[in-house]
Amino acid sequence: MNRFFIPRDWITADEVSISGSQARQIFSVLRLKTKDHIIVLDNSGWEYEVEIERVTSQRVQGKVINKALGNTEPEIKITLYQALLKTDKFELVLQKGVELGVSSLVPFISERCVVKKPGENKLTRWKTIIQEAAEQSERTLLPVLHPVISFQEACEKATVSSSILLWEEEKKLRLVSVLRSPTFKNSSALDIFIGPEGGFPSSEVDYAKSKDIVVASLGNRVLRAETASLAVITAILYEKGEFG
Amino acid sequence: MNRFFIPRDWITADEVSISGSQARQIFSVLRLKTKDHIIVLDNSGWEYEVEIERVTSQRVQGKVINKALGNTEPEIKITLYQALLKTDKFELVLQKGVELGVSSLVPFISERCVVKKPGENKLTRWKTIIQEAAEQSERTLLPVLHPVISFQEACEKATVSSSILLWEEEKKLRLVSVLRSPTFKNSSALDIFIGPEGGFPSSEVDYAKSKDIVVASLGNRVLRAETASLAVITAILYEKGEFG
Repeated sequence: MNRFFIPRDWITADEVSISGSQARQIFSVLRLKTKDHIIVLDNSGWEYEVEIERVTSQRVQGKVINKALGNTEPEIKITLYQALLKTDKFELVLQKGVELGVSSLVPFISERCVVKKPGENKLTRWKTIIQEAAEQSERTLLPVLHPVISFQEACEKATVSSSILLWEEEKKLRLVSVLRSPTFKNSSALDIFIGPEGGFPSSEVDYAKSKDIVVASLGNRVLRAETASLAVITAILYEKGEFG
Repeated sequence: MNRFFIPRDWITADEVSISGSQARQIFSVLRLKTKDHIIVLDNSGWEYEVEIERVTSQRVQGKVINKALGNTEPEIKITLYQALLKTDKFELVLQKGVELGVSSLVPFISERCVVKKPGENKLTRWKTIIQEAAEQSERTLLPVLHPVISFQEACEKATVSSSILLWEEEKKLRLVSVLRSPTFKNSSALDIFIGPEGGFPSSEVDYAKSKDIVVASLGNRVLRAETASLAVITAILYEKGEFG
């Protein structure tokens, strides 16, 4: 069934009214009709099954016929601090990160970033990618895209005692050891830092350490930045029993 | 240092001679000079550090100055049986799967595949993607791309007692339970089946079961085919202590 995140005030008692681009999509692209069912989500964790009663390209109206709490949200809340990457790589991380199960995303600018700070159009596009990935993967909470900040601001924003920066030059401390350490093993939220294509310079790694961010290795193979992001998210979810 | 997989007979005693597109790349793209160093790999597991002695666009000659056994190959040999996907998705799986650490790839055609069997040009392109990903991630063995076969042939080719098919409609048996079961936990090789965009029909799942392929779930979120592939590879490597 097609799923749509909509503003909470579009649902009143058991009536739902959808306008804008989602109405156009339902009418013109999906060509849904009266009596067809959709799922709407108000970002509360609830899923509302809706039977369509009226549909035009401007407005879709329907009745809630069932309401259930979703079960697709991981208990572990992962915030991905991702250095800006070239557009296609960054968008891959957004889409796949949301499918896999991140809770929020903080783009940051690191010394070796080769791309500029995104404009309004790009931010709007990124939010659309996140929303579509959340709908496609059947999530019930919409991951949050935070504003782009500097690496230093990101380090200050990160949660003390539950932040990990992955660095290809770290050769001793493995991610698995960090996740199973006393400090981290019962964490209900984790902040993960992934660098840009050229990696973190050691000055940034030192700065992160000064803010109590733990620096860890992913193992022996050298991963591209976007691959590292998706693999770390997967490994954390697997470790916590939330994937696989 | 730049890395190149080359045919074994291009290395004789401690002399290396590189021709073709790799010579052009070294000369024209990377603009390497006499005295620069590269790593060459002959797909034996050894890494040869080579000092360039002569370089033209037709031929690069050099001397082996060091030889070491690589340590980047996972002990667990993962064969990814991947249904054909739309080109960009399939190429993403090839590239990222090799970076993460698969040993071989078997493309297959499933009932719901929407793409045609690839021609020679595409197969050549896929081999290039695999080789470049193996070089980039510092692997020392080049993953093997097998010919495209049917789903039924793939099931017959798969290893009895160490094959897993991931299916979004399986709700009980989780991948982690399979990996930790007596039959699988000491496997040194695993065959993993991932379906096309539209998933496996139940008839194919039944056929796989009849060939003793275990059918498992990835958890609660619905992943696109290419995301599922990369996440399963990561989870297996993490479980086996080969990633993170």
